[in-house]
Amino acid sequence: MRLVRERKPLVHQITNYVVMNETANATLALGALPVMAHAREEVAEMARLAGALVLNIGTLSPHWVDAMLIAGKSANEAGVPVVLDPVGAGATTYRTETARRILDEVDVAVLRGNAGEVATLVGVEAEVRGVESIAAADDAAAIARVAATTLGVVASVTGPVDQVSDGERAAAIANGDPLLAAVTGTGCMSSAIMGCFLAVAEPFEAAVAALAAFGVAGEDAAREAKGPGSFHVGLYDALAALDPQSLDERVRIT
Amino acid sequence: MRLVRERKPLVHQITNYVVMNETANATLALGALPVMAHAREEVAEMARLAGALVLNIGTLSPHWVDAMLIAGKSANEAGVPVVLDPVGAGATTYRTETARRILDEVDVAVLRGNAGEVATLVGVEAEVRGVESIAAADDAAAIARVAATTLGVVASVTGPVDQVSDGERAAAIANGDPLLAAVTGTGCMSSAIMGCFLAVAEPFEAAVAALAAFGVAGEDAAREAKGPGSFHVGLYDALAALDPQSLDERVRIT
Amino acid sequence: MRLVRERKPLVHQITNYVVMNETANATLALGALPVMAHAREEVAEMARLAGALVLNIGTLSPHWVDAMLIAGKSANEAGVPVVLDPVGAGATTYRTETARRILDEVDVAVLRGNAGEVATLVGVEAEVRGVESIAAADDAAAIARVAATTLGVVASVTGPVDQVSDGERAAAIANGDPLLAAVTGTGCMSSAIMGCFLAVAEPFEAAVAALAAFGVAGEDAAREAKGPGSFHVGLYDALAALDPQSLDERVRIT
Repeated sequence: MRLVRERKPLVHQITNYVVMNETANATLALGALPVMAHAREEVAEMARLAGALVLNIGTLSPHWVDAMLIAGKSANEAGVPVVLDPVGAGATTYRTETARRILDEVDVAVLRGNAGEVATLVGVEAEVRGVESIAAADDAAAIARVAATTLGVVASVTGPVDQVSDGERAAAIANGDPLLAAVTGTGCMSSAIMGCFLAVAEPFEAAVAALAAFGVAGEDAAREAKGPGSFHVGLYDALAALDPQSLDERVRIT
Repeated sequence: MRLVRERKPLVHQITNYVVMNETANATLALGALPVMAHAREEVAEMARLAGALVLNIGTLSPHWVDAMLIAGKSANEAGVPVVLDPVGAGATTYRTETARRILDEVDVAVLRGNAGEVATLVGVEAEVRGVESIAAADDAAAIARVAATTLGVVASVTGPVDQVSDGERAAAIANGDPLLAAVTGTGCMSSAIMGCFLAVAEPFEAAVAALAAFGVAGEDAAREAKGPGSFHVGLYDALAALDPQSLDERVRIT
Repeated sequence: MRLVRERKPLVHQITNYVVMNETANATLALGALPVMAHAREEVAEMARLAGALVLNIGTLSPHWVDAMLIAGKSANEAGVPVVLDPVGAGATTYRTETARRILDEVDVAVLRGNAGEVATLVGVEAEVRGVESIAAADDAAAIARVAATTLGVVASVTGPVDQVSDGERAAAIANGDPLLAAVTGTGCMSSAIMGCFLAVAEPFEAAVAALAAFGVAGEDAAREAKGPGSFHVGLYDALAALDPQSLDERVRIT
């Protein structure tokens, strides 16, 4: 958190149309610098300049998939860490295959999805409706562990309690608020925030720190919210107001 | 309203870049699940999974038109009802022709537009500036009736008083607030909300219920608004707080 | 300001995915009518109908570049003034070359960028990170003057103090608030607002009036903001509440 604010890393995001404004504002509120660029003509150059690259498949089309692969490979060559958010994997064949293709061709440092999305990518059956994972994962922690081992990533499975695993270490983060599920793109925002932390810390610690910070901000925003609209606005205020010191005390990690 | 919240239908939206976040959040606030997907590679599959499909031509390009036609036909085959929002029909030839083409090739259950857009589609002259209909429709009710009969849809013409017609029945909904016209995409949001209701009710009733619910939420949001920004935020809070019982009492339908 | 509200000009915007909703709402809040359209099939027609055209290269791809050139030329033929916002020029070759190409092929009335972007376009070295200009321009006024002379435009270089030059006249506008830098797309919003003023005034006056109005609105929004989220919401309320008379008294132009 302190390092993010001190270094203000540039976080290159190739993300979906629905949440671009939101993930950019969450990145800024936390203290990093967002940049959105998706043209095949410039993504390799932009990814090399960044502190981290976030790939999010929420509104795919072929040119964007190409751009994600080009950017991901360029990031890999330059040693820039990559976050993948496999939005809607399991909902359509195109999304599942694209998420798998990115995992095959790009060295992904952190994978962040809901239980259904991550389960799909490791071949476990899960009910996915659109981009929502409905079935309460009986064992999100197990899905995270299997994904980490099978896919060779730090896997984060988010939900009421977020689970992070690198195959050996595991953490469960119990911060957050139910209103986070009432606003579109909060999952995408948490992936963007992972990008911010990943630019200044190693993947497991970055994933845990990002989910903790985002969860605490959600708790702060919920306190004065009258519904999803005011909660959404309060979330940016809360991210900007996060205090690294009190954050450490409020985080509920096991 | 009760049924939307109980069944949480998935509403597939192929809509414009300007309002994607807004229509997704309005859908969630009402209690349904939004999903945005526009790739020709996946729209047929996604549309079949949905409770309703919303097509909105607010920021067109050829690939998106293709995707709308593919999704619309897939929805028709699967018995998934379709809403069309012909944003800007009448402003450019491309928009008018695309709206007509969708009406020709897809079985549209509900059409929702402003007076100028709907008048254009039934060949009545109307002044359209950009995506706004400036001329106060002398007879929005007549335009709705003609559109319903000519196009074989439930037609909704929204404005200070919303008009819905299926060619035989007609309803006028007088809820709402002038601030709705001060925020971009409120028309698109009302089309998205029609999709939510259309997934659980027949088209005429769905259109009326959606416009009533959205209008009442607009009244609630206006009460504490200091301008278009706070009104916009309050609209999501109000949609989420809508109470099915008091809604029935507050609706002004004739 | 009065003229914008009286004439409600249509402002055609071909802008980036991140800020479309935001620039449309800023345009509406000020009292003008936004329209977003980017298809090569319709931009020439739409640009001719508008009071001004705003080109913003924040999320480029080849089809969008084509559309900007088509729209720009159509606007030129019809006497519709053009604003260019060269977002991220200097960050990647593609952006720098595209901005230069638009300046070569389209008669741009007003150029608005940060110090790094505008410096890049006149060949001065500048540090650009992503779409942010980090280096405090030693002499933003000089960059504006050189850009105006070299490129034959009214050049606006925005920052803590905004600088406008047409090569002969120069103005420095000291309104605004640091929170404007904490929300994504405020630069894009100020370009959209320039489009609104450009539809009713000559370029130099339009640029100055737009930056003054936006800066004063920023000051008003900051007064009650708790952070970037509530500031962002308050900005639309403040734009809508701007009072032409008191605006004149509050503007700090030298």
